[in-house]
Amino acid sequence: MTYEDDSLGLHTDLYQINMAETYWEDGMHNKRAVFELYFRSLPFKSGYGVFAGLEKIVNYIQDFHFSESDLQFLKKELGYRDDFLDYLKTIRFNGTIRCMVEGEIVFGNEPILRVEANLAEAQLIETALLNIVNYQTLIATKASRIKQVIGDAPAMEFGTRRAHEFDAAVWGTRAAFIGGFSATSNVRAGKMFGIPVSGTHAHSMIQAYRDEYTAFHKYAKRHKNCVFLVDTYNTLKSGVPNAIKVAKELGDSINFLGIRLDSGDMAYLSKQARKMLDAAGFTDAKIYASNDLDESTILSLQAQGAKIDVWGIGTKLITAYDQPALGAVYKIVAIEDENGDMVDTIKISANPEKVTTPGIKNVYRIVNTINHRAEGDYIALEDEKPEEESRLKMFHPVHTYISKFVTNFEAKDLHQDIFVDGKLVYTLPAIQQAQSYAKESLELFWDEFKRTMNPEEYAVDLSQECWDNKMKKIQEVKGKVKRDWNEATGQS
Amino acid sequence: MTYEDDSLGLHTDLYQINMAETYWEDGMHNKRAVFELYFRSLPFKSGYGVFAGLEKIVNYIQDFHFSESDLQFLKKELGYRDDFLDYLKTIRFNGTIRCMVEGEIVFGNEPILRVEANLAEAQLIETALLNIVNYQTLIATKASRIKQVIGDAPAMEFGTRRAHEFDAAVWGTRAAFIGGFSATSNVRAGKMFGIPVSGTHAHSMIQAYRDEYTAFHKYAKRHKNCVFLVDTYNTLKSGVPNAIKVAKELGDSINFLGIRLDSGDMAYLSKQARKMLDAAGFTDAKIYASNDLDESTILSLQAQGAKIDVWGIGTKLITAYDQPALGAVYKIVAIEDENGDMVDTIKISANPEKVTTPGIKNVYRIVNTINHRAEGDYIALEDEKPEEESRLKMFHPVHTYISKFVTNFEAKDLHQDIFVDGKLVYTLPAIQQAQSYAKESLELFWDEFKRTMNPEEYAVDLSQECWDNKMKKIQEVKGKVKRDWNEATGQS
Repeated sequence: MTYEDDSLGLHTDLYQINMAETYWEDGMHNKRAVFELYFRSLPFKSGYGVFAGLEKIVNYIQDFHFSESDLQFLKKELGYRDDFLDYLKTIRFNGTIRCMVEGEIVFGNEPILRVEANLAEAQLIETALLNIVNYQTLIATKASRIKQVIGDAPAMEFGTRRAHEFDAAVWGTRAAFIGGFSATSNVRAGKMFGIPVSGTHAHSMIQAYRDEYTAFHKYAKRHKNCVFLVDTYNTLKSGVPNAIKVAKELGDSINFLGIRLDSGDMAYLSKQARKMLDAAGFTDAKIYASNDLDESTILSLQAQGAKIDVWGIGTKLITAYDQPALGAVYKIVAIEDENGDMVDTIKISANPEKVTTPGIKNVYRIVNTINHRAEGDYIALEDEKPEEESRLKMFHPVHTYISKFVTNFEAKDLHQDIFVDGKLVYTLPAIQQAQSYAKESLELFWDEFKRTMNPEEYAVDLSQECWDNKMKKIQEVKGKVKRDWNEATGQS
Repeated sequence: MTYEDDSLGLHTDLYQINMAETYWEDGMHNKRAVFELYFRSLPFKSGYGVFAGLEKIVNYIQDFHFSESDLQFLKKELGYRDDFLDYLKTIRFNGTIRCMVEGEIVFGNEPILRVEANLAEAQLIETALLNIVNYQTLIATKASRIKQVIGDAPAMEFGTRRAHEFDAAVWGTRAAFIGGFSATSNVRAGKMFGIPVSGTHAHSMIQAYRDEYTAFHKYAKRHKNCVFLVDTYNTLKSGVPNAIKVAKELGDSINFLGIRLDSGDMAYLSKQARKMLDAAGFTDAKIYASNDLDESTILSLQAQGAKIDVWGIGTKLITAYDQPALGAVYKIVAIEDENGDMVDTIKISANPEKVTTPGIKNVYRIVNTINHRAEGDYIALEDEKPEEESRLKMFHPVHTYISKFVTNFEAKDLHQDIFVDGKLVYTLPAIQQAQSYAKESLELFWDEFKRTMNPEEYAVDLSQECWDNKMKKIQEVKGKVKRDWNEATGQS
């Protein structure tokens, strides 16, 4: 189960290796190809998403290779032949990746990341890239939504025990930090990423001492900053009174930060506890709450006037409980032909939203230079220059009769070069910078897109050229399918 | 972000370290304590669960320590003091773990795993144990449910791209295998765990060749075992005809296994494709289907007579989409007192289901020796010997007036010793053995517990002694809370 030379080369779907082998066998493996990574619709019926995952992608790409034990496995267990394995042995990622930066505000159907590489390399990295982006972007988005309702109050990520295994715990809490969370309970994530770490004690400590007062006292002896968990026996009749008693007795020898509620009715208990703390003179003591919270329950608690100062969020955040998967895909949009020219590719589907948009594209955020708000995102073919236009026609990508003209705008290219010909050209920012970037980027958007329930739909439009190109390709493919079918069935 | 000496010692919630420090400061850290790990209710409204996670627990426990960089982080970033860190530096897991084996059928409120160790060690491992068991048991359970509706047809795990980061992809597919899946698309999981690996090609290969027929042909040249993905342009007018054309042309030079459907209406398309394959003489060719499937959609497709032979399951399995968290908890049930005697501990809650059951317990499966079916699970205190009884009273743990007497039974202890005083005494089985064990164990249960919708509730009962002990403890705690309250408020 453990290999000294474990690599992530094999962290891919088998079909990627089969396709790479087909291309290699056929001499196609070095053809230039362009793939785009995007999701079709936002999770949680959200009005926006927050991109995360680039740091891990950079780590993965830099280390991408097949180890000796990988090659042995492919040969002995899966029967791949030596000639192809000799090729795999030498493979590294030598292509170009353009990508949004972490914390970027992102929407459906726009390329988050674009890979231009030889066909085999571009194909082999697909699965890992999706595995990373789908999860981290999902969690950054969920965290940002929770922050929308919490406002400036601190939000703590407490979900490790319910995360989907170890990686999700640490990378998920990192994504939550990018989305606006203040701290995590996971110590390892704190060490790995420099996220502040937070935590006090559990019910088991009260039980181990078999007396709540004693337990609080013992804890306070070593830990000057005290938050007491008050619901082990009875929140209002035992927990809060004991917390107050210890805080009074120890006075300035400790820093009594407050109490934590972890079960029962949070609205009622927080209001009662607030009164008790205030009556005892602890008006600065904070009330921490945690108990299967998410943006919906928080909104509801707020509506009832709950007196909660710090929010601990576990399960519902780290598992993205109400929609635990983002459906990002990775689709080929162009390939080098026999003559060395790039030609656009398309996939047709019975589901219209699954039809791909052919061609190498850039995505621009169109920001109104008068009110400094985003008008929409604009997807254009690589050779278009929307930033040089003075008047831009934007039309709805499905209901194309809905359109508007935009003037007085800046067109910001949302992609940055990350790898160029296999070389890392991007400096990963500190995580605090990614968090700030997400926060600042959100300020470009009107509130109606940020509402957690029933937000307005933000415009993500194709350029006229991009649209026309897509229509042309659809007609080409449909024409070919029809000709082949008629030929096969003897119709004319 | 990367440390040469990275360990999982810090893969825990901060409060565990704070509590360990409190115990150490107070000389409590070496007190014997017993914790039990269990979940309260089954996920997916399922009638049963399948336990997975032990192999990773064994790995984790064997390697449990704090590395030099961990200790430096705790000191420099979190301000822990040297005296305590000197203690942490030496800590290893020296306790005893009893646990169900992987593949065991499991229900709510029964201890899956029991830790007896010194208080600090038992506390520090809590978070990681829950992180492992919650996810892996969730996925093994989901997989088993899907197998209930698929029957003997092969089920393939295809979810890596939607998994919650890398660990979930590989450990999730391992759990799915234990739950009854046949294969995975994740090559690394195949290498790590010896799971069969499966996969053919993607839409991008058709697009790269810009001609479906050519692409199938090229693939077949290198890959004798061919499953063609037929929905890139038009399933019935292009994909299936091209697959048949290539299969006919290449004849015995390839092994035409079948076709794969990945979009559109699976019921209609599979029936039409079946007719086309049969008409072309390929009656043995299989139809593979994948497209957001789970046990509900599969049931519905079956009801419409879909002709699907092999099921590829991705997102809905690997993320446990309809309930992405299992709520297992880890609760202290006994602690060594001042005199060195073990005393039982309890946690009371306003939510009755959150009241813990005090005392060190075993869990027995009561199997009727006449019909060889399980009558229920029986939770008894450690010193009870239900296997020596000839007549057992089992009563409903909530509605206690519902009871039955069981005779002619075997009482099977569901726990095995895994670690004894820190030493591994259990041999991890091959994964195929865990899969067989799950399958055989399920045969002990009547069909009504295995139905995926509205199953009957299986009995998990407390022994009379265990019940009486719980009632006594509740009264003790309530009495103490009341006395303290009266004293504090001046009532008599």
